[in-house]
Formats: sequence, C-alpha cells, structure tokens
Amino acid sequence: MPNSLVIADTTNSPHARQRPVPVDAVRLSDSFWRPRIERNRTDTIPSQYQHCITTNRIRNFQRAAGKVDAPFEGIFFNDSDIYKWLEAASWALGTNPDDEELRTMVNDIIKEIGDAQQPDGYLNTYFMFEKAAERWTNVRDMHELYCAGHLFQAAVAHYRATGEESLLNIARRFADEIYRVFGPEGRLSACGHPEAEMALVELYRATGETNYLTLAQRMIDARGGNPKNITGGTWDDRRYLQDHVPFRELDEVTGHAVRMLYLSTGATDAVLERGEPALREALDKQYASFTKRRMYITGGAGSRYEGEAFGRDYELTNDRAYTETCAAIASVMWNYRLLLLTGEAKYADLMEWTLINAVLPGISLDQKEYFYQNPLENDGSHRRKEWFGCACCPPNVARTLAQLTGYFYTLSEEGIFVHLYANGEAHIDGAIITQQTEYPWQDTIRITVSGASAETKTLHLRIPAWAEGATLNGSPVTPGSYTPVPLTGGAAEIHLVLPMPVRRFVSHPYATVDYGLTALARGPIVYCLEQVDHSDSDIRNLRLATDTPLTAEYHADLLGGVTILTGQAISVAQLTDDLYAAPGSYDAPATSAALTAIPYYAWANREAGSMRIWIPTS
Amino acid sequence: MPNSLVIADTTNSPHARQRPVPVDAVRLSDSFWRPRIERNRTDTIPSQYQHCITTNRIRNFQRAAGKVDAPFEGIFFNDSDIYKWLEAASWALGTNPDDEELRTMVNDIIKEIGDAQQPDGYLNTYFMFEKAAERWTNVRDMHELYCAGHLFQAAVAHYRATGEESLLNIARRFADEIYRVFGPEGRLSACGHPEAEMALVELYRATGETNYLTLAQRMIDARGGNPKNITGGTWDDRRYLQDHVPFRELDEVTGHAVRMLYLSTGATDAVLERGEPALREALDKQYASFTKRRMYITGGAGSRYEGEAFGRDYELTNDRAYTETCAAIASVMWNYRLLLLTGEAKYADLMEWTLINAVLPGISLDQKEYFYQNPLENDGSHRRKEWFGCACCPPNVARTLAQLTGYFYTLSEEGIFVHLYANGEAHIDGAIITQQTEYPWQDTIRITVSGASAETKTLHLRIPAWAEGATLNGSPVTPGSYTPVPLTGGAAEIHLVLPMPVRRFVSHPYATVDYGLTALARGPIVYCLEQVDHSDSDIRNLRLATDTPLTAEYHADLLGGVTILTGQAISVAQLTDDLYAAPGSYDAPATSAALTAIPYYAWANREAGSMRIWIPTS
Repeated sequence: MPNSLVIADTTNSPHARQRPVPVDAVRLSDSFWRPRIERNRTDTIPSQYQHCITTNRIRNFQRAAGKVDAPFEGIFFNDSDIYKWLEAASWALGTNPDDEELRTMVNDIIKEIGDAQQPDGYLNTYFMFEKAAERWTNVRDMHELYCAGHLFQAAVAHYRATGEESLLNIARRFADEIYRVFGPEGRLSACGHPEAEMALVELYRATGETNYLTLAQRMIDARGGNPKNITGGTWDDRRYLQDHVPFRELDEVTGHAVRMLYLSTGATDAVLERGEPALREALDKQYASFTKRRMYITGGAGSRYEGEAFGRDYELTNDRAYTETCAAIASVMWNYRLLLLTGEAKYADLMEWTLINAVLPGISLDQKEYFYQNPLENDGSHRRKEWFGCACCPPNVARTLAQLTGYFYTLSEEGIFVHLYANGEAHIDGAIITQQTEYPWQDTIRITVSGASAETKTLHLRIPAWAEGATLNGSPVTPGSYTPVPLTGGAAEIHLVLPMPVRRFVSHPYATVDYGLTALARGPIVYCLEQVDHSDSDIRNLRLATDTPLTAEYHADLLGGVTILTGQAISVAQLTDDLYAAPGSYDAPATSAALTAIPYYAWANREAGSMRIWIPTS
Repeated sequence: MPNSLVIADTTNSPHARQRPVPVDAVRLSDSFWRPRIERNRTDTIPSQYQHCITTNRIRNFQRAAGKVDAPFEGIFFNDSDIYKWLEAASWALGTNPDDEELRTMVNDIIKEIGDAQQPDGYLNTYFMFEKAAERWTNVRDMHELYCAGHLFQAAVAHYRATGEESLLNIARRFADEIYRVFGPEGRLSACGHPEAEMALVELYRATGETNYLTLAQRMIDARGGNPKNITGGTWDDRRYLQDHVPFRELDEVTGHAVRMLYLSTGATDAVLERGEPALREALDKQYASFTKRRMYITGGAGSRYEGEAFGRDYELTNDRAYTETCAAIASVMWNYRLLLLTGEAKYADLMEWTLINAVLPGISLDQKEYFYQNPLENDGSHRRKEWFGCACCPPNVARTLAQLTGYFYTLSEEGIFVHLYANGEAHIDGAIITQQTEYPWQDTIRITVSGASAETKTLHLRIPAWAEGATLNGSPVTPGSYTPVPLTGGAAEIHLVLPMPVRRFVSHPYATVDYGLTALARGPIVYCLEQVDHSDSDIRNLRLATDTPLTAEYHADLLGGVTILTGQAISVAQLTDDLYAAPGSYDAPATSAALTAIPYYAWANREAGSMRIWIPTS
C-alpha cells in the first residue's frame, strides 16, 4: 500500500526541507475552494469524460488494442488528455472513495489503457499499426515521452488514491521499456516537450525503482549537449525547446512556456532527490528570470502567441498575453516543489497567487468551459470554450483542483506549515487543525489546534508578503515569512489577521507596456474592470486617480460570491478619434464615473465586453 | 512605345483625378533621397542580383527551361523575388539608361524567364516536372497568381523603361493563360496572397487588353463569396485571407497585413478604372480602420508576429510590432493610388510619412541589409540581415527606391501637384520646376517654375498636415491641403516655409500600450532613442518632461547626415527590481540626463543597444 495520497512525495527525499500532507487529510467547508473542488468532481470530470468519448480519445485506445477498426483520431498527443483526466479522477476518487460512478469511469479507462499496451510495454495509441515503425524516431516533436509522463503521473495518483496497482503496473512496464531505450545502455535523448522528468521522479518515489530517477536525471542532463543537441534544428529551435545550452547553464526562462516550467519542475524534483548544487543554482536563476522579468501580475507565464512562448525581459503585452492556463499550472507545481525544497514563504505566496489569478481564470464559474489563453486586456471577443482540439488545459485544471487540498499544509522537522487558508479541518500527524475564516474575502483567520503529538512542537503560519500589518493574537508578525506558533500541550488557539486593504500596483518601468497604468489587488486577488459592470461609461475611458478611495464589499449573489471594489473614477471623453495627436488632445472633458472592479478570475462569465486589469492612471 | 515611365498609369483612367508624372522626369540633387536612389542602383540592386544567383533563384528558371539538372531550391514563391528585382532594375534602368551593366543583368534574366515559360504561357519554376500536375490546384496557399502579379509589374516597368516588349510579351502570354483558367469562361477563384489584382490593372493600362482588367475585377469580386469561399478553411482562415466576407462588405483591415494592403491597392486600381461606388466605400472604411485604429505612428502596418497580421483595434504592441517592411510599401502604393483617385493631401502626407518612417528603416544606411520586421522598441537584439529565405522585403525596398521620383509630382486638369520636396529639378509638360531646399531637415523650400504651358495654369503645393504656421511667399497657407499657386506667364517664384518645431505625440488612450508615453517627431520624421547615444544613462530609465525644450541640430557626419534632437531628460534609478510594486516604488532618485533622439529610420546602424520610439513621460 502507498504511504498516503500526497502530491510530490518527498517523505524520503534527502534534500527536502518539507514533506507533503495528504490531499485527503484536509476537508474544506469554505465558500471559495470547496464548491470548486466539489463541482470539479461532479461536473468537470464527468463532462470531460464525455468529451474524451465523443472526440474518440478513448476509442484510440480501443483501436490500439485491436478492438475497433477505425482510424486514429485527433492530435498525436491526445493520449495525454486521457492520462491527465485519469489523474484528476484519481485524486477526486482518493478524496471521495464512495463515488462509485467515478470509480467505474476510472476502472473502465484503465482497462482500455492496459489492453492497448504492447507486449514490450510501449504505449502510445498514435504509434500503432502503420505508424509503429516510427516509434521513438522523432522524440523532439512527437511527444511520446510527454504522453508517457502523464501516464506515470496518473498511475502514481491512482495508486496513492486507491492502493491498486493496476495502472501503476502499466506505467512501470512502459517506464522499463523507456529505460531500455533511453537509459544508460540506450540512447541519450529527451522529449521536445518536458514532462516525463517530474513524472519519472514521482514514479521512483512511488515504486522505489531507482532506474526511473536515473532516467529523469539523464533526460535533464541530455539537454543542450555540445556539439550534438538532442533535439536538433537551429539555435532558435533549440532555445525554444530549452536545448540550446546545458540545463545547468540555462539562466532564464525561455521558449515554450509550459515546456520550460515543466522542465524546471522536473529538475527541482531531481534536486529534491539528489541535491546537486549546480542544478539548484540554475533553477534559482530561472526563477528570478521568471518572477522578476517575465511574469504577468496574475502569475501568468508566456507572453507570445507565436510558439506559446516566453518573451524577452519585460515583454508583457496585455491584450495579446498568451498566459496559457497550463503554464500557470506548471508554475504552481514548480513553486510547490521549491517550497518543499526550501521552506521559503515566497514560493507559497506565488503558488496561492497563481492558483487564484492565473489558474482559476482558465475555467468558467460553472466549471465546464475553459480558456487556453488568459489575456489581461480584451475587447470581449475572448470567450471560454467547452473543449479544444489541443485540450491540454481542461484536464490540467481538473487535476489541479482535484489535488488542491494537498497544497494547504506541509510537514517538516520544525512542525506543521500552513500555506493556504480556508474554512475547514485537517488531520495531520494526529493533530486536528481547524480554520475558521472567510478568507480570501476577509482578513481574519481563527485557527485551533488540538491533539498534536509531542514531536510536532510548532505550527508555522504563512504570512503573505502582501499582508502588511498582519497580527497574530494581537502581536505584529512579519509578512513574507512563516510565523511559528508553539503547540503547548499539542494545542493552540490562534487569531490571525492578514489585513486586506485595496492595493495598487505599478509595473517595473522597463515594462513600458504598463507604464502609466495601475492594477488593483486585495489580499491574494487581482482585480479587473469588466464593461458589464459599467453601464454608464466605456471602461476604456476610465482613469483612476492615485488617491481615489476604493471600497471592498462582499456580494454573495455575484459571480459565485465575490468581494468587489468600487469607487469613483474619472471618465474622459475622446475629443478626437485620431490615433496619434498632440499631448492633451484626448484629455477633456472629464466627468466622474462609478468604477467597479471584480476578481480577474471571474471575468468573462457574464455578457461579453471589454475587460482590463491595467487601468490608466489619471 | 509606351507613353512614359510612370507608376500606376492613370493617364486614361476615367475615374482618376490625377495622373502620374514619369519617374525620369524628376532629377534630384538633394542629400536625402538622391544618395539613396543612387546607392540603390549601384549597390542594392547588384548585391541582390548576387543573392538571387547564390540562392539559386535564377537557377530555378534554368532548371525549368531544362538547361540544368538540379532540384528546385528555396521556397515555392521565390520566383517573385526575381520579378521584384527585375522591376527594381527596370525603374533604375529607365532613369539611368546608360547603365550597361544593369541592362545586361536585366536582359540576361529576361532571357532565362522567357526560356522557362511553358508553351501554354504558364510560368512558375516551382510547378515544373513532377509538380506540373499540381498547377492551380491550390491557389489559396501556393502563391502562383502572386508570383504572376510580380511578373506583370516587372514587365510593365521594363516596357515603360525601355520600350522593349520582350518581358511584356512573356507577361501577356501568361496573363492570357490565366484568363483562360480564371476568366469568365473559367474558374471563379483568387490567390490567397493578393497582388495580381493591381498588377493586372497595370498590365491592362500598358497593353489596352481589357481581359486583364476583367480578370482583376473578377478576382476582387470572387472573395468572400457565399456559401462557397474561394480559399476554403475556417472563418478565421478566411478572415486571415480577406475571404470571410465579400470585399465590398469588408470594413476593416484584417488578416495578413501585406495581403490586405495589396488587395486594397488592387481594388483602388479597379476603382480608378471603373469607378464603382460600393468598392470605393469599402476602401474608405478599410482606410479608416487602418489609419484610425491599426497603424503604428511610423505608418507601419501589422502588429502580430503570428500570421504577419493586423491585430484588433488599438492592438499596437511596440516591442513585438511586426510592421513588415513590405506592408509599409503596400501602404505607400495604396496611398499613392488613393491620391490619384481623389487628389486629397492626406494620402500624400501618409505616403511621405510611411516612406521615411516605415520603409526606410527596412534598409541599412549602406543599403545592403534589411529588416523584415520593424519594431518600435527593442533591446538591441533585432539587427538587419543581408537576405532572407523568404526575401520579399529586400527587392520590395529596391523597387520602391528605384521608382521614388515618380511619387514627387502628379498632373491634373487643375495643374501640376507637388507632393514631395527635395532639392532637384523636374520637367513636366514642358515646365521646368526647380526645388531648392534642405528638406526634410530644414523648413524652407524655394521653388521656381518656368516654361509652363498656357494650359498648366496652376502649381499645387502640398502643405503637410503637420506644418502648422506654414507660409507661402509670406502668407499663411492651410496645412493638410494643396495650396494653389498661379503660374503667371508659365512661371512662378515660390518661397514656401513648412515650420518644423519638435512635435510631441501621444496615442489614442484606447491604445493602452502607449499610455503615458510620448513620441517625438519633427517635420515628416519620427524619432527614437538609441542607447549608443546615451553613454551616461540607460535609455530605459529616461523620462521626458512635457515642458522640456528640445533642440534640433543637423549633423552632416552622423548616420549619413541627420538632424538630431537633444535636451535634458530625467533619469530615474530603479529602487527595486521587483516586477510589480506599489506606486512610487520606482520613482526616485531622479537626476537630469542628456537625451538624444535620432530619426527612427536610422536606428540599428551602429553598436547594438536598446531603442525606443515611445518615451515614458515624467
């Protein structure tokens, strides 16, 4: 039996500062996350299952097993959607073992997968029959190892959720075949789309098979080899694939954003196991490149449509921001692993921020429609869709929500760490931790701990960097760090206040795209303006004065329950429709106009219209 | 013999307000255009000829003629580069008939083209031998009609330049074959890459063959047909190809920028011949869409790398501006034809502005290297290249410079119109017009006219819209219009002053990307900051106060002779390298720092470094 239902099981990782707490150790009863997690299980996962059927993603497995006579349908990496769905379903099943309908779906799909597996362990429904001879002939472009990685993650999740080894054994057989082809006795190569690295480390953690760790490390080491690069092509091609320099010399986030962040996540997993300083240093530089120069205020990653890629430093276009939902999820995964590695609060800060402001916008409030791209400014034409031909994002959101409670707490020798806040209860190492709060809408969190063991001496509470003036039981605590609370007699009563004034942001001025613009946030939530809330004015004409007071008020009946910000803006009529004119030409007459800001994650759930996060400053 | 060496010969076009003046009627002796036109002939055109040889673009014709046994090399539309080069060389030869070296090159290439032509008139070196069966099977993607259009333009230019019909006959034979395939008795279709439309109208003008005009009109009419579209594909595909709605209903510039603007240019040519009001109305809407909402301050067109395309309204990213050099050239061609159609000064204004600020940046000062994209902000990594696999831009610049003197004047029943200013002499309808000026660097233009016929009663001088306070012989004249000067006794002495203070621009605030930023211009020239002129400060830290005086001074030894702008800016040190922070976090300490602005067209001709047109306002 597996240890427990954890994400990134660093329990035995020699270089981890922290280890995960099971996804099913945390039971939420809040109004923010719980309904989303529940709807994910009852609506999102079943509806995605239907999409997988109707788009013949499942039939592809039946075809590979010789059960149906039909052509392969869809894109060559469509197996990965099935695996991601299966991972999502497994986490959901782990936390809801009584959901028999879900269990049936899961078991049915595992059966199809198993039947499609080849005698040598190979498993990819695209490379069958007439395509079988092309296996592993183009690992740069054909995503075989990427698909394998998603299988491994699904298998680990399923094993931890159910204790069953059905999918795990399929994964192992395939991983063993990959080891024969790409292990020390085989070819030195890696996938053009990283993903298998982190998956193989987890498969190692779940099975104890060191070959898988070896393989993951080998795939990281293979990149940027000189003179022969694994992926071939021009320098720009290789840069796009993070293969232009050895990974240890890669000091920026570059190329395809999801691939980049998956790769860094996998390398972080490798560091958790092996502790290599050179790898760690490269990761720190990549992280600085991302967070200091190439990240949207939402936490979103990737500014270019062309290639779904990172741009140059400070290249952060808002209307054409790509910010793929998957890239945000990759950032959450990376931040979580860096948190396990270091125990530093900044990683948990960004993990929470990205979850709310860059992952959640990717799914509609009814949780059946999705954004692939998440622009920070739009004319109303960008709307969510039920599914995509390249449907990477929908099941990625589903697996993230299904495992979300696993991100709330971690454990270390220093005690229990609390990273996320929401009304609910957790059972960790015998201790019962109860949170009473309306976070993220309200600033007060009451925490009680009881029954902690003598070894668990301390509870560490994340004080977000934004929480200036935070207090714990009336005493000031330091934002951007964990505040320790001793568990005297295994218990504590905590009254934590994380003040949530409306905060204004400006961008680093090298990001000229945002110069003169202001963004709004409150607590961990980034806000935006949507035209539908402004019947009296075109939001493109609104200007925000730096000293305008803004009021926060919770509306239970709006957008699933949100705190909105309201105030008076300046509305500027346009004197001319000329595209360029002398300064002052567009400045008058100005009137006062009501401004309403809603959480960015909730945009595009009502009537279509303009939206913008960055508001011109008057 | 042809009438004369004119661009867009509207001499007999029933709906033209103006008709062109021959390219060789104008002899410049100025320091701005003349060296460029001369270097174009002596350096650019010969060096491009060499590139056409070394890249086997010419060998492709020899192969098609069965002279060499070699594979087709390059991209399937590479013939068009040869044709564009030939057009450039023809204009140059027309104005320099003694250039025997050039004549030899031209004749050699014409011989190769003629030898490659098929018995039925078909001519495309890609669709030969094993590809011959694919002729006209994919007119959407394979650019056959596009290549044909460039052949027709070259043929017309060559015929007008030399009076010889060698290339014209090749063109006619091919056009006749196209008429058989796509004329009224053939298929209703059009090229995915418009170009043939304007070329066919010109071929009609040069030959009198009305079938060519019919064919051009038919290609315009074919687009956006319902229910069957000519190009097929999704609505987005068709929109990209300007085939989603009938052209008469197309009220925006959309999709691939060069294709869009070539199509509008061709439709304007059709209106010049047939005067159809519905077509004219659509063109006006497209023009407004372009100039009011989708054009860069340089005149550049196309904000998206993905698809080399126009973006949405006010989508005008600066660092990733695509602004293909060819798209700017297309805009010049379109504006010139709208000028011929209407006689309105705004078209000549934008023609000049675009030539200087969006076409000239596409070529290095030594005129041997080219930009494909012309960003308005860059970190120094964007540098010109000698050639491209897709080498559409280099010969496009060459043909534009080779015909440039043709844009200076036009004729109408109201007299002679002067659109561009430069030291030199023109012979028009017997009149001799002399311009004495250091324009575009200085504001004074002395014009003398003598020998004008009795019918040529008036000289009309363009007063650019930017020339506030302009005077003519001491009396105020109206910017944005043509000022008539009577030619008493066939002569006039004119002292025109077009004041050139440094002008500041801001963008329409819906273009949030430019909000809070200022651009500088003087006369017809847009300026930029380049790091190389700022040894004491990082130009990204410079802020321009709205009241800072800026001084203009000519430097003969700098960048081929330019007027630069200097003044004191504010240099702001960055207090934090955080990407997002509270307002004020980046504001201090500020010091005074020298600011130097150079003409944008001259950027990237020295040491690589940051460049920006839009400067943060302090």
